[in-house]
Amino acid sequence: MAMAETNPDEAVAAFVKHYYSTFDKNRPGMAELYRENSMMTFDGKKINGLQNIVNMFNSLPFPVCHHDISTVDCQPYGPAGGVLAFVTGTLNVPGQDHPVKFSEMFNLIPIQDTFYVSNAIVRSNKA
Amino acid sequence: MAMAETNPDEAVAAFVKHYYSTFDKNRPGMAELYRENSMMTFDGKKINGLQNIVNMFNSLPFPVCHHDISTVDCQPYGPAGGVLAFVTGTLNVPGQDHPVKFSEMFNLIPIQDTFYVSNAIVRSNKA
Repeated sequence: MAMAETNPDEAVAAFVKHYYSTFDKNRPGMAELYRENSMMTFDGKKINGLQNIVNMFNSLPFPVCHHDISTVDCQPYGPAGGVLAFVTGTLNVPGQDHPVKFSEMFNLIPIQDTFYVSNAIVRSNKA
Repeated sequence: MAMAETNPDEAVAAFVKHYYSTFDKNRPGMAELYRENSMMTFDGKKINGLQNIVNMFNSLPFPVCHHDISTVDCQPYGPAGGVLAFVTGTLNVPGQDHPVKFSEMFNLIPIQDTFYVSNAIVRSNKA
């Protein structure tokens, strides 16, 4: 996923697409998208560190799902090339009647030709 | 709004409450919550810099509104004391039948005994 030729918005949109595609189709690959000190907050639950985040993905009660991305907004910040991304979309789980709306923010740190997730906070709207 | 005696989550929750209270009751005061290089993205529209952000607040078509905050999640990041906050809630505007759900993320930078908003991204769910 080279970003040399793309603008920041396109690079972030590509990363976000890659993130949810990995979530949906190659869940063990999520371990590659975080780093040792990454933090996630999932519907209010704090999950700190790579191993705990990987354990969370591995323990989800649905082995298969599909994310549809509705919007991706992003902004650069700070001197180190970090990017904040804000995503809205729906999560579809086989056997569940209705898709679940979610919104998620990422703090993305550039590494080589892609990003890793330093911080992620997600909320699902279960109404 | 002193934060010396509070933990980071409480300090962020207090700032978020102050932010929306200012939005609702003292809109000119929003200028104090941003800085020259702050960035906002409002339903996909990028608004860069303090003056443009102030102009956006001043040009909103509803002079009065009320935000109800549903959730506030936050995480520290980086070496400089920055905090990422993620808020969900509803916006109530007099004369509109239904409240509008929104979610918003902030990149908050500590300054003296409070924060300023370096980055804000908001999406409203108009379904």
